[in-house]
Amino acid sequence: MNILIKNVDILPVDGKHDQVFNSNIYIVDDKIDYIGDNIEGKEVHRVIDGKNKLALPGLVNAHTHLGMSLLRNYTDDVPLQTWLEEKIWPIEAKMTAEDIYWGSLLSMVEMIKSGTTAFCDMYDFMGEVGRGVEEAGIRGVLTRGMVEDPNNPDKKLNEARNLYKNWHGKADGRIKVMIAPHAIYTTSSEFLLKTMDMAREFDTGLHIHLSETKIEVEDSYKAHGKSPVKYLEDLGFFDIHTIAAHCVHLDDEDINILYRHGVYPVNNPTSNLKLASGFAPIDKMLKKGIPVALGTDGPSSNNNLDMFEEINLASILNKGVNLDAVSVSALEAIEMATINGAKALGWDKEIGSIEVGKKADIILLDLDKPHFYPRHNLVSAISYSAHGSDVDTVMVDGKIIMENREIKTLDVELIKYMTEKLAKDLIRR
Amino acid sequence: MNILIKNVDILPVDGKHDQVFNSNIYIVDDKIDYIGDNIEGKEVHRVIDGKNKLALPGLVNAHTHLGMSLLRNYTDDVPLQTWLEEKIWPIEAKMTAEDIYWGSLLSMVEMIKSGTTAFCDMYDFMGEVGRGVEEAGIRGVLTRGMVEDPNNPDKKLNEARNLYKNWHGKADGRIKVMIAPHAIYTTSSEFLLKTMDMAREFDTGLHIHLSETKIEVEDSYKAHGKSPVKYLEDLGFFDIHTIAAHCVHLDDEDINILYRHGVYPVNNPTSNLKLASGFAPIDKMLKKGIPVALGTDGPSSNNNLDMFEEINLASILNKGVNLDAVSVSALEAIEMATINGAKALGWDKEIGSIEVGKKADIILLDLDKPHFYPRHNLVSAISYSAHGSDVDTVMVDGKIIMENREIKTLDVELIKYMTEKLAKDLIRR
Repeated sequence: MNILIKNVDILPVDGKHDQVFNSNIYIVDDKIDYIGDNIEGKEVHRVIDGKNKLALPGLVNAHTHLGMSLLRNYTDDVPLQTWLEEKIWPIEAKMTAEDIYWGSLLSMVEMIKSGTTAFCDMYDFMGEVGRGVEEAGIRGVLTRGMVEDPNNPDKKLNEARNLYKNWHGKADGRIKVMIAPHAIYTTSSEFLLKTMDMAREFDTGLHIHLSETKIEVEDSYKAHGKSPVKYLEDLGFFDIHTIAAHCVHLDDEDINILYRHGVYPVNNPTSNLKLASGFAPIDKMLKKGIPVALGTDGPSSNNNLDMFEEINLASILNKGVNLDAVSVSALEAIEMATINGAKALGWDKEIGSIEVGKKADIILLDLDKPHFYPRHNLVSAISYSAHGSDVDTVMVDGKIIMENREIKTLDVELIKYMTEKLAKDLIRR
Repeated sequence: MNILIKNVDILPVDGKHDQVFNSNIYIVDDKIDYIGDNIEGKEVHRVIDGKNKLALPGLVNAHTHLGMSLLRNYTDDVPLQTWLEEKIWPIEAKMTAEDIYWGSLLSMVEMIKSGTTAFCDMYDFMGEVGRGVEEAGIRGVLTRGMVEDPNNPDKKLNEARNLYKNWHGKADGRIKVMIAPHAIYTTSSEFLLKTMDMAREFDTGLHIHLSETKIEVEDSYKAHGKSPVKYLEDLGFFDIHTIAAHCVHLDDEDINILYRHGVYPVNNPTSNLKLASGFAPIDKMLKKGIPVALGTDGPSSNNNLDMFEEINLASILNKGVNLDAVSVSALEAIEMATINGAKALGWDKEIGSIEVGKKADIILLDLDKPHFYPRHNLVSAISYSAHGSDVDTVMVDGKIIMENREIKTLDVELIKYMTEKLAKDLIRR
């Protein structure tokens, strides 16, 4: 189907435009075929009126745990170790494939409603997330998060292997699989080497939590005499495409290492605040040329999946931390949530910007809201005024999966019903 | 009119309940008459079905500059001094009464749409804001912000005097007027003493920016040999009810002074980050028993008026800053935005909580959104998952001013049209 989005304000995030311009986007099947004013004679099956709409590349949530939506607001305002050890881990141990299937669908509903079209997920029962991606029509990198079980180290590795074999390239290419050792403090170096071998075997990337807390760094110095970043470098981990979630506690040498090896850090500002992890040196990394991506982390350490909140926070928080109102501009924060996310996911040739030849993963914001008046500068508006609920239309692969805020691909009422039921049941188990 | 909100989830913010409970709220005319299960025989003219709704006290935005909505997204990502001196002040000097009237109405639309029912505003042409409050049906403290003009110090004092005489107690008591010297660095001590005299004469409160930036504190030490807080204490300023906006850079003695005199600090977390002012010691003040309130600051240093974003940020930011995931709980942040705001505005006998005898200033959140599933803990959900756009119904003085997100009192289309037109015109002037 050929779709024309007519007379629409566009922020393409293509590295060439730092302001919004008004034009037309012409889409043929799954791809952006033309952007410009000369639309006469083009074969069009569907016209979308772009008046009072702003087109952005679909947002990329580069680090999350979708199935954790079942634990949203289950435990908050407690210290991190209590949160993890006494609350989250015991209940996670009881979660089933069914829980993850419905929980991930709920997360996909929330993501679509707030303009996210691609994600990188790390969790258990990832085949269920694959099923969800097929149905929802969005795009996802699936990674089986592996906390090493010393009694049976191969079990999870085999699950990761099967996940790759069963799901990589599926859903018309909207699914990728990467290999995800959970963190350096939950795996041995032998185990990490095995995950690296697997990533090499499949020619795919790695996904890991890295330098999230001060304790992780201190423990790394105790165990290995070096930082987590240096430890992974010495293992050769970064010779492979790596998505490194959090990267909060980095020294200058760590940043040099990440830069040298082309590692893709993912900033999770809400989670890092809420769990009291600290402030990641985003401005420093961006200035060095590291394309830091953005993520929400899981819905139980956030507790929503609204990437517009993360864009806003990435921009204003770094100004506050650096006592510099120029730090992390509106456009830089938007890049973190789009093209930089696409780079982290190894998908920047296909998505992350509105450019001819790329996949038509496009969202339209409804500008006819009071907080978008007056219209001095729409780039600022996206970062500082917008809400996820301003997203009106969502398109992935040239298919409209939400229109007038109505999701076309999923049974939202059933998903709400099932997640409420399963969450209640989970508590009682 | 008697309204019954039936079978509704309620967080009353009454200091007694730390969890949501389901019950009925019975409203007679402008007041809450009864909360409970025994509703038989009550005369009811209108029933609101509370199913899938959450009742909260209307939010209190305790420090803002409503007319600045005309400058929303006009200038961002520049250093504070450039922002103020080269951008904001020159264009503010061109603003007219008409600009302020329409700009403030736009802000009221945005506030109502995101659940704010009361505010404290500091700006120019405040009579225009009074007109807006009358029409919008919300509640406001009006203060004429006074930067001292050494050539004509009495002009603004007279405007403040006239504002009090013309508007205090108006709009069925929904309007209050307080006296607002802008800050200690824009007024002399003689001028401050005159504002204090006026506040005493009218038996009303004072509203001032206080210790917002590090430079303000350093300059105060240079000029007066003491902190801004100590300087105002020594002037006797705090013997009068004082709303002190920002209070970012405080030492322990400053906090003691604020506590001893019952000063009402207002935290503006988004603005303090965006303008790189720093982190206010909120946790320390709350622990001491100071009822810190919450505000958005003006829409051009935020750049929206969504108090749910401020609730979220007040809670998570302080966890991050204090490296303590227990710092500023969800409920504490909600209190900041409701009952503490009511205290700051001197209105806590009337509003700020859902209690029998108080004014019916109530908002209903639509819980039937994906990010409110599952429902483990609705207090957490308000602080960590909610958005301003979840507000479905807004009631002030027992009158429904928004229902199904439709504002009943204002011509929203006209306001959007006029603010866009005036903002364009303002740039050209």
